[in-house]
Amino acid sequence: MINKLVEKIQRTEAPIVVGLDPMLTYIPEHIREKAFAEYGETLEGAAEAVWQFNKQIVDYVYDLIPAVKPQIAMYEQFGVPGIAAFKKTVDYCKSKDLVVIGDVKRGDIGSTSAAYAIGHLGKVQVGSREHVPFDEDFVTVNPYLGSDGVNPFVKVCQEEKKGIFVLVKTSNPSSGEFQDRLLGERPLYEYVGEKVAEWGRQCMGEDYSYVGAVVGATYPEVGKIMRRIMPKAYILVPGYGAQGGQGSDLVHFFNEDGLGAIVNSSRGIIAAYKQSAYARFGAEHFAEASRAAVEAMREDIKSALRQK
Amino acid sequence: MINKLVEKIQRTEAPIVVGLDPMLTYIPEHIREKAFAEYGETLEGAAEAVWQFNKQIVDYVYDLIPAVKPQIAMYEQFGVPGIAAFKKTVDYCKSKDLVVIGDVKRGDIGSTSAAYAIGHLGKVQVGSREHVPFDEDFVTVNPYLGSDGVNPFVKVCQEEKKGIFVLVKTSNPSSGEFQDRLLGERPLYEYVGEKVAEWGRQCMGEDYSYVGAVVGATYPEVGKIMRRIMPKAYILVPGYGAQGGQGSDLVHFFNEDGLGAIVNSSRGIIAAYKQSAYARFGAEHFAEASRAAVEAMREDIKSALRQK
Repeated sequence: MINKLVEKIQRTEAPIVVGLDPMLTYIPEHIREKAFAEYGETLEGAAEAVWQFNKQIVDYVYDLIPAVKPQIAMYEQFGVPGIAAFKKTVDYCKSKDLVVIGDVKRGDIGSTSAAYAIGHLGKVQVGSREHVPFDEDFVTVNPYLGSDGVNPFVKVCQEEKKGIFVLVKTSNPSSGEFQDRLLGERPLYEYVGEKVAEWGRQCMGEDYSYVGAVVGATYPEVGKIMRRIMPKAYILVPGYGAQGGQGSDLVHFFNEDGLGAIVNSSRGIIAAYKQSAYARFGAEHFAEASRAAVEAMREDIKSALRQK
Repeated sequence: MINKLVEKIQRTEAPIVVGLDPMLTYIPEHIREKAFAEYGETLEGAAEAVWQFNKQIVDYVYDLIPAVKPQIAMYEQFGVPGIAAFKKTVDYCKSKDLVVIGDVKRGDIGSTSAAYAIGHLGKVQVGSREHVPFDEDFVTVNPYLGSDGVNPFVKVCQEEKKGIFVLVKTSNPSSGEFQDRLLGERPLYEYVGEKVAEWGRQCMGEDYSYVGAVVGATYPEVGKIMRRIMPKAYILVPGYGAQGGQGSDLVHFFNEDGLGAIVNSSRGIIAAYKQSAYARFGAEHFAEASRAAVEAMREDIKSALRQK
């Protein structure tokens, strides 16, 4: 799947992943009202609004981008119907040939991580039959429990040719509280990065590993160091746009081959119609605003990489 | 909710939480067959088997214990129907007046953690109405992203009088890989424990805080230190039984008042009928075996605490 991701990034010339993290407040009133008219102001109604919103955005951007990243928390907050909307979104994106990165940040002790890995990337055995529960192509993984929380994911990646992005240095303001702590001379995230490189050697694609890393756009200097420590890891870079990261911050996350990083934008794309730059589209044409925002983001990254 | 947990522990004289972490291999054939006959060897069939298994165990142990801890990964591996079985289990346990600890190990950047906190402990707004999505009493939280990944949970705990257990030192063999790294003279988990104490001061119950910690039974020396660093935090102690922790290892996790810790056992209780000590019950009477295993665990902990 890492080979497919790289190939799609090259074809679209867009190292971009659109974060499908819908808050109800992002969803235009006409979509919410239609969903509530059908299902009431219920969890089912919220899930329907989320799904219809996602579907339209995907329809308008799928040909421009290689991948999407639904953040499962935004679905889980609507309970079981929300999780059903997550699954529907995953399936729809795959039907459009998009690479789907489930932003689930799971991680637990061995047997439990194995259940998460099977549930999100693999197949589960029920009696004599096998089923594919959620079927994302990649998921994000939290490394706090160490190797035996990550290895079950690596094993499923080997079997299924799927991938993971391990949290190394997250984009949020307090990420340094534990991740930046110095162990001797070097911060914790460097040790995590070294483990990512080690896990990654166990499942290599053509040029890059099935095991990638998350490093926030908000910490470009860290990107430079991590790029060196994990040369074969694809870096998933959150924090562009709404969280403050700029195109020029991103160049350090890429290798000399112009590859090695994929930049996420969520709010900046899916709620573009709420920004003054795209207000001309109006709420009715929110998905066209998203398309314009993807095009602008692609140009921003392209021009930053040209100046590298 | 921490007050209710303490009160129930005192009343039952059992600082025990039963981990409802059903693997299909734990579930007796007669239950699986009945579920598959009704729903086929499908995700729905697996979810039904899990639910029927849980229900019988709960019916046989609910009067002996204060709390249960369903591990959501074991449900998530069966996709959307699995998550529905998780919700059904939470609701049923609450109808039996059990305190429900959702072992979800969530944690993300601020706005995303807020969605998880709302989804599992709080209420979500849909139009003019509020809904309670999963409704656990406590959840486990991963601290790798620092305070702004934990604070949204603390906020919901304050509003709802619910609680969290933050991962400090997990029970698995490789937990030391990052958690034990020395920052100067002291390991990372001590710094996390200090933050737990700090977060906990913002939401105190009567004697203990709504913010607790996870420290594995497999590391009793760590328990001793953490008990001192976080005197007001309830410690959720996994790793007893199947993972190797003994009653005598547990005494360091308790305070002088005989409180302050709650010990989890999953496999050792729910799959007790598979152990030679309880084989006499047979698969047909698996839930009675679970009851006997709870009683034995209670005595083991009681006698260890007497010898403290």
